This record gives sequence, C-alpha cells and structure tokens, in this order.
Amino acid sequence: MAEHTEETLDVIIIGAGSAGLSALREVRKRTKRFLIINDGPWGTTCARVGCMPSKLLIEAANAFHHRTTFDTFGIQGADQLTIDITRVMQRVRKLRDDFVASTLATTQALGARAISGRARILGPNQVLVNDKNLDAKKIIIATGSRPIVPVKWQALGNHLLTTDTLFEQEELPASMAVVGMGPIGVEMAQALSRLGIKVAGFGSNKLIGGLSDPRINQVAVDLLSQEFPLHLGEKAELIPEPGKNCIFIQAGDINVSVDKVLVALGRRPNIDDIGLETLGISLNEQGLPPVNPETMQIADLPVFLAGDVNDHIPLLHEAADEGHIAGLNAVRKEIVCFRRRTPLGIVFSDPTIATIGEHFRLLNEKNIVIGEVNFDRQGRARAAQRNKGVLRVYAESESGRLLGSEMCAPTGEHMAHLLALAIDRSLTVWDLLRLPYYHPVLEEGLRTALRNLAAQLPACSESDLASCGPFNADALD
Amino acid sequence: MAEHTEETLDVIIIGAGSAGLSALREVRKRTKRFLIINDGPWGTTCARVGCMPSKLLIEAANAFHHRTTFDTFGIQGADQLTIDITRVMQRVRKLRDDFVASTLATTQALGARAISGRARILGPNQVLVNDKNLDAKKIIIATGSRPIVPVKWQALGNHLLTTDTLFEQEELPASMAVVGMGPIGVEMAQALSRLGIKVAGFGSNKLIGGLSDPRINQVAVDLLSQEFPLHLGEKAELIPEPGKNCIFIQAGDINVSVDKVLVALGRRPNIDDIGLETLGISLNEQGLPPVNPETMQIADLPVFLAGDVNDHIPLLHEAADEGHIAGLNAVRKEIVCFRRRTPLGIVFSDPTIATIGEHFRLLNEKNIVIGEVNFDRQGRARAAQRNKGVLRVYAESESGRLLGSEMCAPTGEHMAHLLALAIDRSLTVWDLLRLPYYHPVLEEGLRTALRNLAAQLPACSESDLASCGPFNADALD
Repeated sequence: MAEHTEETLDVIIIGAGSAGLSALREVRKRTKRFLIINDGPWGTTCARVGCMPSKLLIEAANAFHHRTTFDTFGIQGADQLTIDITRVMQRVRKLRDDFVASTLATTQALGARAISGRARILGPNQVLVNDKNLDAKKIIIATGSRPIVPVKWQALGNHLLTTDTLFEQEELPASMAVVGMGPIGVEMAQALSRLGIKVAGFGSNKLIGGLSDPRINQVAVDLLSQEFPLHLGEKAELIPEPGKNCIFIQAGDINVSVDKVLVALGRRPNIDDIGLETLGISLNEQGLPPVNPETMQIADLPVFLAGDVNDHIPLLHEAADEGHIAGLNAVRKEIVCFRRRTPLGIVFSDPTIATIGEHFRLLNEKNIVIGEVNFDRQGRARAAQRNKGVLRVYAESESGRLLGSEMCAPTGEHMAHLLALAIDRSLTVWDLLRLPYYHPVLEEGLRTALRNLAAQLPACSESDLASCGPFNADALD
Repeated sequence: MAEHTEETLDVIIIGAGSAGLSALREVRKRTKRFLIINDGPWGTTCARVGCMPSKLLIEAANAFHHRTTFDTFGIQGADQLTIDITRVMQRVRKLRDDFVASTLATTQALGARAISGRARILGPNQVLVNDKNLDAKKIIIATGSRPIVPVKWQALGNHLLTTDTLFEQEELPASMAVVGMGPIGVEMAQALSRLGIKVAGFGSNKLIGGLSDPRINQVAVDLLSQEFPLHLGEKAELIPEPGKNCIFIQAGDINVSVDKVLVALGRRPNIDDIGLETLGISLNEQGLPPVNPETMQIADLPVFLAGDVNDHIPLLHEAADEGHIAGLNAVRKEIVCFRRRTPLGIVFSDPTIATIGEHFRLLNEKNIVIGEVNFDRQGRARAAQRNKGVLRVYAESESGRLLGSEMCAPTGEHMAHLLALAIDRSLTVWDLLRLPYYHPVLEEGLRTALRNLAAQLPACSESDLASCGPFNADALD
C-alpha cells in the first residue's frame, strides 16, 4: 500500500516539458506548495527530439545545398565540397545538449519539489508517484506526446527510426524512406536528401506539410519532387527483407528498398495509465477528456490538461501558452479565459511551407477573394537565386479583411509572422498595403499578392496610400 | 529661337526614373495629352546603378562568405572555394540589364510621347526640350540624383569609382577604400571585403549606415570591424601617388594606400540648369524650392517635385510614392494630401542594419522605455550560425505604444517590416506580444526585446495573452 504524505499541495504538475515548465513558471511565482513530476529523461520534446535538433540538421543540410547556387554566382570549387555526416550529427547533439541544459536549469534548482517518477492520478485531487499518495488542490497534466509507430512495424528494430532516435545516429545510411509527409516528414526528408542521402518520401494524404490549399500544395509537391521522389496518396507498407540489411516499402505501384525508414506519422498523447478514467467523466475514442482551450480546464474539475497531451495544437508556442494558462488558472480562485493566438503553422522546408489564420479548406470560396504571387520574377528572390514558390492570401470579399494565407515561398517564415500580425489585428488588404515595403525585399512579393487581391475587390481607393483629404482646393486651374 | 508646338499638354513629366515612371502610371490612366522627357540613359537609378546591382554584388559576396560557417556545420573543402570576380561582375550586369529592360518596356511603348533630351522649365507652364517650347497645364520634375564627388577629387580619374561606375568594372583591384559609411558605403565595403578585396572603410561621422542609436551603432561598428578596418570620425583626404598606380588616403592619424577608391558620400539632386529659378519663388541654399511632402506640389504652383530630386527621403519606395502622389495630383482639379508611410530604412549588410519609425536621436529619453535583445544566445540564430547582433525597441513610457526601433540584427530586414506594421498601426508592446511567435525563429529574439521593454512598464497584465474575462467562477474550491 502506498504511503500517504501529510502536506496538501496547491498544485502538482505532471510533466516537465514545454507546457509543464511554462505552468511551473506561473505556479512558483504564487505558491511554494507545489511539485513537478517527470517520467523519463528531463528536458523538453522541443529541445531533446523536436524543434531544435531538427533545425540543427536542416541548417547543415541547407548550408551544403547552397553550393548548387555557387557556379551561377561566380564561385568555383563547389564540387570539392563534401559533408561529414558524423560531424554533422555531432554538432546536432552538442548544441541540442546545450538547449536541453537550459531547459533543465529551472527544475534542477527545485530540489525536492522536482520528482522523477511515473505519476498516476487517483482522482481529481490525488496523485500516486513512487508509491506515495499526494494530495493537491489542483493538478496540471502536461505529459506530452510520442511518435506514432504502428505495432506491426515495431519488429523492424533499428531499421526503423523516429525523431526520438534519428538524432542519436552516429552515421546515416546511404538510403532512407520517410513515411508520413506532415511537417516533420517534409522537413526531415528534404534535410536528409540535401545531406546526400538517397531519400524517398511517402504520404498517404495528397496534401503535405499541413497545407490545405491544393494550389500551394501542388507547388510544394513539385518543388520537393525536384529533390527526391515523393509518393503520395497510397498507404505505405514496410516489409523486412529477410537476410538482407534493408527494408522493402510498398505503396500502390511503388516498390522501393532502403537501408532505414524514418516514421513520421504524427504523435500520440502520453495518456497511458495516467488515470484519466478516475476523474469520473466520459473520455473520447482516444481516451481524452473534454478540455476548454481557453482555460485548459478538464470539464469543471480542478484538473488541467495542457500541451501536446491534449492533442489540440501540438506546437511549441501553443504548448507554452497552454501551460501558462493552466499554471495561472491552477493558482487562482476564479478560472480565467484567454483568447488563443492567431493560428500559425510553419514547416522549415526550403521554400518555407506555412499556413496562417483560417485554413483554406475551412473557407467558403464564394465569400473570399484570393491574391497570389509567384516568386519566379521577383527581383530580390532572383538576385538571391531563391525565386521558387507561390504565396496566396485570402480575404473576405465584402470587407477586404484578411482571413488567412498559405504559401510555399522563399523565407516564408518571416512573411508568415507579418501576415499573422495583420490577421490578428483584423486588418484589411488595404491596411497591409499601407506598410512601407523596402526595396528590394521578398516582402514585395507579398505586396504583389495583396495588390492582386485588392484588384479583385470593388475599388476602394486609387492609391495604396491613405488620403488625408483635399488640400488647398483653389490653388490650381 | 525655339520652335513652339501647338498642343497644350495636360502633363509633362521630366525624368523617367522610379518617381517619373510612377507618375506616368497615374497620368496615362487619365489623359492622353502627356509627355515624358528623359536626359541620358533611360532606366531607373534603382535598376541601373542602385538597389539592384548592389544587391546582386552583395548576394554573391554573402554566398562566398558563407563558407566560413562550413567547417562548424561539418562541411569540408571550403578552402577549395575561389571566387571569379569577372564572372561575379558579369552576372551583376546580366541581371541588372534584365531589371533595366523591365523598367524600359513602358516608355518604349509610348512612341512620340517619350522624348530623349535635356529639359529646362521656362516657367510654371512651359518646358524647353530639344529646341522646342512645350506648354503644359502641369509639370512633374523627377530628375533624380547623382553621386556626390568633391571637385578636387575628380582629377583622380579611373582610380575613383562611384556606384555609377563600380558595376561596370570587369575586374576589381586587390585593395580599395570606401569613403563614406552611410547605407551605400557600408553595403559596398562589406560586399567588396567578402569578395576577397582588401577594403578600408572611412567615415567622417561616427554613426554609420543611417543609425542614430549609439548602442546599436557600436554593435554595427564592432561587427564590421571584424571584417575590415573602419576609420571613423575624421574626414578622409585623397592624394594621388605620382608615378604609382594607386591613391593615398589620409584621415586623422590613418594613412593607407589603395588601388582604387569608392566614393559613397551621398547623392546630389539633379537640378542644374533645370530652370527652378524661373518659377518666381525663393529657393533654399541647395537651390531647392519648398515642396509639400503630402502633395509633392511646389508652393502653390502647377509644378511638382518628386523623388530623389527633392532630397526628402531618397529611397525607392518613397520615390515611387512621390511620383504616384504627383501623378495623381497633376491630373486632378483638387490637390489631395496623402499620409506618408512609416519611416523605414534598411542597410543590406550582414547583420542587417535597420531603422524603423522615429529615429532614436529624435526621441526624448525621459519619455521612452527601451527594450533590447542580443542575438548571441538566441536559439535559431545559434543553429544557423547567425547569432551576432543587437536590436532595440523604443516605446512611449506612458502608453507602451511602439515608437521606433534600430537594429544591427540577423535577417533584420524581415523584423523591420514587422515592426513597421506595428508602428504604422500604433500598436503597443502588449499588442505585438500577442502575435504568435513560431519556434524556433529569429522573431523570438524580437519578442525577447519586447518582453524586456514590457517588464519596465507599469504592470499591465500577468500574461502576453489577452484575457477574455472570468469563467465559471464557482466551479472550483
């Protein structure tokens, strides 16, 4: 039988990832009676196996890929460049360890308030961990997620990688398949290909990288297909090749044999045996309870579900917000709602894939006007040899108010933030045309799309500039 | 005596640069009775000798410089890379010619409405060109500017370059001085240095690249000084070295001998012999008449002065706006005022130098709060080996409203546009903190500066997120 501790805690946080640490920041400002419990390695998904190591791999891959522009620029010797994968992976792990260390600093300083162990809730106010029962006024569950690997593939052993194991590789094989063409699959397939690995990409969905606009998707598929074969629309099957050190992949008519497979089929919430069934409320098919995204509260219980574990929006900045909201609400008498941020999704491919605001698939095409730009003739993009990609902007046809954008566009991550600000502030296409666009910048491409959009709206002004009215009307004529 | 033509024109545009072409676009939509007159080569300063060829040189230089990051990324053979300046310059001219061609297309299609010749106004309604007197209801003067070269230096012949001649060079010499560290001087000095030329930079002003914040200026000076020597605060004198194929430069205690000198001391309006004195109004010391920046009208005359020639804001996007305003007003009965855009200056150095909104030097430090970020520890910047630079944001201390920003920061041109939008919309630091900042992006560095700023203001909210009020207040406790 579990030991029962005396202290009643104000808050127990289960999980020390991005959401849990964000909750911790708010909780510890307001009470000393808290605990944070973590199972497995400390350090966030983002720093350990997510955003950061993937970006380190991508930056090395893109630096190497940049040599393909050298001859045109007048730089000689690009064919003498080679990449040392061992050193690439060493740098990935070295900087990753730095990023992980900075996430550990907070919890390491907590002493006995930070507990290693697997927690299980026993009800809305009780947690079992390391054979102790702990009472708490509030519980925040932020246990994150892990890569989905179909059970039947688990027998493939070390032929099969996920982002949990990819960055631990000392070497990478000559050929790889990436199965799943969501954001992570697209990023890793392109990076591995640019590092010189023979890559084949597989996606059961015809839409890739979180895009929903078929026109932008086609641009992204066409551009990526120039770098590695992309097989979309058929489910991939993995078959071990007995006696050979490789895996056989079948998807529709496609048959490919590769050394290893990176499985990027998305992530599953870590809710196994966490005890959600003890809360006395109904759970959905996935086993998840109802959570209010503006408060992170589970139903009307003193329990919060924040970050990837709730399967709402599995992105770092959203997880941090959810931890923040849960942390604030766990130490308040009154639950407070927060307005969530404008949706923003970025895939760090080249060109960048991004979705901002309302997804194209959710818009009614009858009520919107679409502006488009192709970067092939854009001045700065041509100067930099980055003139590939298309961006589309959607606005309400009645008001000209910007609703959303999807793109596969050079340095798109920056234009995505600019559009997010415009959409967050409910700006119209004319408002955004009043911005100074310095010359020559990629943002002038965005302006082209905005002008293309504005030209389809009932004429509003003869100028991008705001008129401040007539002046000195009788001076002339 | 000049021939007098019969037709009274609605508008004569003098100058077919960015401002003149922008005026033309509006004028020709509304009347057929117009002429555009150009002296010297057709094609804009921007495309011929300005923004575009400079950016082409910079992109090649930065691509070559990028090899300094290769070893750390794990890429081998960087020392095998060489740059062929002849081919660099050939590409600069080839793409430049493309950009020029696109500016020529409009005027080439005009036939007799586009005239080559040197125009002189004879009064508010008359222009002399090619020995013909032309009458017009309105005149737009948009004759642009040219590089300033002190008279005593003109004898230095082809040892002395300006942006008018730099891009025509087939080869570049082993050593160069760049005199003048404004935006163009900084851009070209760094680019030439990165192309392998031994560069020395000279500026009589201690502030460089249009910066006015001493802290940011120091960062820019320190970073550039790691690439080439920068001699600031003393006026440079150029002395020919008789019998030697070089120039001697003296500035304070500094004595340097170089093969050629690029003079980047700014640009002078092209108003010589244009006839401004015939307008019957007083001209300033520079010989310029009073111009209303919201209408581009000269005093109350039917004459407009638009673009670099008026010496207001010699930037392409402002010149285009001024031509646009002049063009609209030249064909209207009533003169209309236009609100000018939020100030934005970008220097395409690496890191980017930029000024947005109100310049630091114009702010009263008593009424502002300053937020700052150093990119040295910023995650994405470290991943990309671009973690050098500092950004500062200024806000009104009473309201938190963003007033301006200066930076020497990686990929700063994009953050500059984001800040320009925020300042244009009179947003506060809290408004801009409500933006989604995707992870990991350079814009998270900007957020750090904003949080640093917000922390110095009277507390406004416990959250970056907007609260939408209490929820379900009695559910807990």
